[in-house]
Amino acid sequence: MALTDPDRLFPPEPRLRDLARALYLSVADLPILSPHGHCDPRWFAENARFPNPAELFVVPDHYVFRMLVSQGATLPELGVSRSDGGPVEADPRAIWRRFAAGIHLFRGTPSAMWLDHSFEHVFGLTDPLTPANADVVYDRIEDCLARPEFRPRALFERFGIEALATTEGALDDLRWHKMIAESGWHGRVITTYRPDAVVDPEFEGFADNIARLGETTGENAHTWPGYLNAHRARRAFFRAHGATATDHGHPTARTENLEQADAAALFDKALRGTCTAEEAEAFRGQMLTEMARMSLEDGMTLQIHPGSWRNHSRTVLEAHGRDMGFDIPRRTDFVGNLKPLLDAVGMERELTVILFTLDETTYGRELAPLAGAYPALRLGPPWWFFDSYEGIRRYRELTTETCGFYNTAGFNDDTRAFCSIPARHDVARRSDCAYLATLVGTGRLREAEAFEVAHDLTHRLAKEAYRL
Amino acid sequence: MALTDPDRLFPPEPRLRDLARALYLSVADLPILSPHGHCDPRWFAENARFPNPAELFVVPDHYVFRMLVSQGATLPELGVSRSDGGPVEADPRAIWRRFAAGIHLFRGTPSAMWLDHSFEHVFGLTDPLTPANADVVYDRIEDCLARPEFRPRALFERFGIEALATTEGALDDLRWHKMIAESGWHGRVITTYRPDAVVDPEFEGFADNIARLGETTGENAHTWPGYLNAHRARRAFFRAHGATATDHGHPTARTENLEQADAAALFDKALRGTCTAEEAEAFRGQMLTEMARMSLEDGMTLQIHPGSWRNHSRTVLEAHGRDMGFDIPRRTDFVGNLKPLLDAVGMERELTVILFTLDETTYGRELAPLAGAYPALRLGPPWWFFDSYEGIRRYRELTTETCGFYNTAGFNDDTRAFCSIPARHDVARRSDCAYLATLVGTGRLREAEAFEVAHDLTHRLAKEAYRL
Amino acid sequence: MALTDPDRLFPPEPRLRDLARALYLSVADLPILSPHGHCDPRWFAENARFPNPAELFVVPDHYVFRMLVSQGATLPELGVSRSDGGPVEADPRAIWRRFAAGIHLFRGTPSAMWLDHSFEHVFGLTDPLTPANADVVYDRIEDCLARPEFRPRALFERFGIEALATTEGALDDLRWHKMIAESGWHGRVITTYRPDAVVDPEFEGFADNIARLGETTGENAHTWPGYLNAHRARRAFFRAHGATATDHGHPTARTENLEQADAAALFDKALRGTCTAEEAEAFRGQMLTEMARMSLEDGMTLQIHPGSWRNHSRTVLEAHGRDMGFDIPRRTDFVGNLKPLLDAVGMERELTVILFTLDETTYGRELAPLAGAYPALRLGPPWWFFDSYEGIRRYRELTTETCGFYNTAGFNDDTRAFCSIPARHDVARRSDCAYLATLVGTGRLREAEAFEVAHDLTHRLAKEAYRL
Repeated sequence: MALTDPDRLFPPEPRLRDLARALYLSVADLPILSPHGHCDPRWFAENARFPNPAELFVVPDHYVFRMLVSQGATLPELGVSRSDGGPVEADPRAIWRRFAAGIHLFRGTPSAMWLDHSFEHVFGLTDPLTPANADVVYDRIEDCLARPEFRPRALFERFGIEALATTEGALDDLRWHKMIAESGWHGRVITTYRPDAVVDPEFEGFADNIARLGETTGENAHTWPGYLNAHRARRAFFRAHGATATDHGHPTARTENLEQADAAALFDKALRGTCTAEEAEAFRGQMLTEMARMSLEDGMTLQIHPGSWRNHSRTVLEAHGRDMGFDIPRRTDFVGNLKPLLDAVGMERELTVILFTLDETTYGRELAPLAGAYPALRLGPPWWFFDSYEGIRRYRELTTETCGFYNTAGFNDDTRAFCSIPARHDVARRSDCAYLATLVGTGRLREAEAFEVAHDLTHRLAKEAYRL
Repeated sequence: MALTDPDRLFPPEPRLRDLARALYLSVADLPILSPHGHCDPRWFAENARFPNPAELFVVPDHYVFRMLVSQGATLPELGVSRSDGGPVEADPRAIWRRFAAGIHLFRGTPSAMWLDHSFEHVFGLTDPLTPANADVVYDRIEDCLARPEFRPRALFERFGIEALATTEGALDDLRWHKMIAESGWHGRVITTYRPDAVVDPEFEGFADNIARLGETTGENAHTWPGYLNAHRARRAFFRAHGATATDHGHPTARTENLEQADAAALFDKALRGTCTAEEAEAFRGQMLTEMARMSLEDGMTLQIHPGSWRNHSRTVLEAHGRDMGFDIPRRTDFVGNLKPLLDAVGMERELTVILFTLDETTYGRELAPLAGAYPALRLGPPWWFFDSYEGIRRYRELTTETCGFYNTAGFNDDTRAFCSIPARHDVARRSDCAYLATLVGTGRLREAEAFEVAHDLTHRLAKEAYRL
Repeated sequence: MALTDPDRLFPPEPRLRDLARALYLSVADLPILSPHGHCDPRWFAENARFPNPAELFVVPDHYVFRMLVSQGATLPELGVSRSDGGPVEADPRAIWRRFAAGIHLFRGTPSAMWLDHSFEHVFGLTDPLTPANADVVYDRIEDCLARPEFRPRALFERFGIEALATTEGALDDLRWHKMIAESGWHGRVITTYRPDAVVDPEFEGFADNIARLGETTGENAHTWPGYLNAHRARRAFFRAHGATATDHGHPTARTENLEQADAAALFDKALRGTCTAEEAEAFRGQMLTEMARMSLEDGMTLQIHPGSWRNHSRTVLEAHGRDMGFDIPRRTDFVGNLKPLLDAVGMERELTVILFTLDETTYGRELAPLAGAYPALRLGPPWWFFDSYEGIRRYRELTTETCGFYNTAGFNDDTRAFCSIPARHDVARRSDCAYLATLVGTGRLREAEAFEVAHDLTHRLAKEAYRL
């Protein structure tokens, strides 16, 4: 028996289900474009084996350990390292058992679907993971991981990945991408320019980061024009390693379009560490507009990921550091916040700005109306908590009627869990086909159009939006 | 083959589909009440032919040209005039071809459904518009427009319109309505009192507008009591031309109920042009309450359409002027903002205030609880971006459980695209019947009740709410 | 013929419907846990007969009279008493007829379903209430009420209630709970500690309430430590009368974790009545954190019900007093507001804080991410306006994918309408089973898991979250 239902996520009504299946089968084998995510390029550079099942599925996946923690597991029990260097569980099998003991917690979540898909399609398992068979499953995966066909590059090829973008900070030397390029391997693993650390005056070590930016580029990064030129240089360096896009994770969608003299003055304050919170926010906002202007120069797509309250739990931040699953969405305003950027460059037809949100109330009220009007805007796919069947359904239902399909940008998996990539793209393809079948079945789309749109959503729109 | 599916928008499950169809057939031929919209009364006064397909379907319809612009068309290419008088595309056939080239952009949108419905039911077309048949379709429509049965009055009658309300500014001389009345034609085309230009201190030419208001009415409109009396006079003038309602398009739902002396002082500031933004907002809010009090005197229904950021793109505003499809919804608060008005007149059973929103989050959280309690309040139908199948579904699902059907106000098409009127009412009737069939099919409504409610939603509630 | 459809609320598609029915039948007869509500403990203490149909179904049920008022009934016509002692309708049959005259207003609302369920299952009626049969129905219910098997304790047992929590103010003497306990009756009716009157500086008579708190407990409640100890004493007294939980109805979800000296200074201001609105809000927020700390000491579950604008209509408040159906939800922020409490105690695995909301936009954006991370948090069921089929559907669709089922807390009826308790639990069980059947039918949950989850949602999760 299969771990996953071959008709999963299709509408239950038989006529629609048949159409959804036909649509899905027409796109199921298309190559995967993964234009935004957080895989480690070192995997593909070194092509070493993945260490063990716990480090593949539990320790790095904040979806997984967060849920376990919410029901009483502790981060150290799950092998998550401590800021004070204190002891944490070191036995991967013990971590795996703790995970299996909480497997019921994932019922009804996308994690359950991704895990089952990976277990079945990557590792050939046929029984659901339970507390009782935890060791058997562990051994099976461990056996696989030891084999060459489970090395990163082999999986990359087996997954049918046409292009995979990783995300690196502006100061990264991109050594792994260089190593991949020099290795002769043909897998397309590209980088993305993520300059938060040199754009956000509140980032740890901002002034030092700017100093390093200057050293790296040979620009006088302590002057406003030199600083901008240093960005231009780094963008060119990233493009030389395949980058076609930049990415910006700001607390809000605030943008500014200040006079250059005012921007320069703000930059000076940022360098001296004397920005107020409001000034820091304004500077970040100014830099989005500057980045958009550079995108007009060099053709890179600009992604904005706003609205996450990072590291919400002080307790967890102090004990374990950043990015421990306690990032919580906040209400986000786009209409007022994006106006300065849009007044500057929103009508540019050569520019592509992709907007993401963690606040679904903005889909119908703000994002679809904006993307359905400004030529420069595209809507990114459902992000993070909303990368799921219901999330995708709401996204399509709330945006399509206002901005159509062609102002959206295809799918992103945005993952650091490598094995979940095919699973996530499969969920997206199924969910989109379910939506399209419903449109056809209710007379809102012609059947032939649905097949064309299915192909566009799966492949063409991402290729175009990210210029891949 | 039909352009539109005769069972479109009905639930896919066969038993529900049959019931939805039966409900729909029971209301499909009821006359159309269009109590709020933006058709041009001149059409019916002069009864001249519509100039060409592009000026009927593309140039005046911001749903259509906005989508084309969002994907790279320019406004001048689509024949939209420029503020500087510079050249724009003057060949309607060229505009039509540009439109047909982008027809795929509308897939899944209500515009696609409205266009197909108009093409099929008004112009007898049987094939979808494509880039390939653009000229054929153009010629066919052009042929029709030359014939007398495609003149405005003939279409009005063919569409089965029982009453159509247009919307005019407070200073309008209503000459077209007068001309219609004097023509002996029996079509009921009424006006609506829309006093934004003499109520909003931030409106262009506010002081001049007030001066004209005084001249027109013979009241001393520069004093607070004279200004209010001038409103009373204009309302009476509008009622004499059929008006049963007023309409107010404010940035927010802010209301005030100031002491009359304070209101008078604020009015003086507005006249002198010295209001702060906050004072202008307060004055607009005060005027909503004043209008509500006048509605208690003269029986006119009061409509509030808040929450649109008008002319969001500075670039477009400067190049092409107002109302070019770049109006974007904003988050709206009703609970605090309406309290002053509701404390003043909310419990009045003789008053009808109809609330509209572009912020769907307020349906369940604010609007349904308010309308389900205050006797003076009714909820307007889904507005603008939400005048669509999904928009109507969400509206019913989010409001019915709290305020029922009888605190809603029937359907509005709110359109300036004349041919879309039957299409829009058809979508609303189908969507409501789909919802009612689902209620019956899940044991939440008895079948006999559903037929009664279908009739109420289609005809009775609008008639009652607008006192038609 | 039955008043209610035996398959109501199940998905229309036959395969899913069969599964939903099977799931429902597996939990339909489980005992009712009602861990939060507003029944009057005196009913069970005295076990007197309910006075008449109007006082059972209309006068105390703000869902019912609010809807009638929204369509033109007046509160006095419905027997609601006036603050000035003026006359109101005293004939219960006249009130009942007024209710029956407006019965169509409830179409599509949960009230209609609750009323039909009560009429059918409690009183054996087989025809819908209409204006025509109002007297017949009245007489039938009146006949029943006179019989011993319709006394409160008999109904309690017939309803299959395992435990019922009422809600009492901190100063309540709990005499009725004492009387129940001493009566030898085995029904489990427990209290809940609701200290709003001694926690909210803006509550009427706050200083007097604190004085009474001191007298009652023998603590010096005018000092900060004494005040906290007085709470401890009252919590212990409530626990002795069965309480396992506290409940807090604040305007917002604001919490604080001030230094104790600062909290003491704020308390002094509150006692002297010199708090600003902001300080009152901060004090209430501080008290939530203090209550959470006491919950860690004594094991009581803490419930937060924020975001209602109480007594929104000044007219109604002045004429009829508080709690007259004019409480309106407001936008609520949890992410920033709860941070102080969560930083203090959010990672405590022994603490249970249950969050409720009237702002559904927070389900997916804030509440599910928070509850899916912090061990101390559970999500309460859909509250008030959202205790309905669509409300429960949205709740599950918007929370399950992020926090799963096991971070939710089962169902609450939260009612003061005793006969609606079985009806409300029945709606919740059906709605949850419909959701589970949909998950199974779309391959998102295994069938065997669905049966287990159905049982958990119906019984185990409430038992655990409220420590019953």
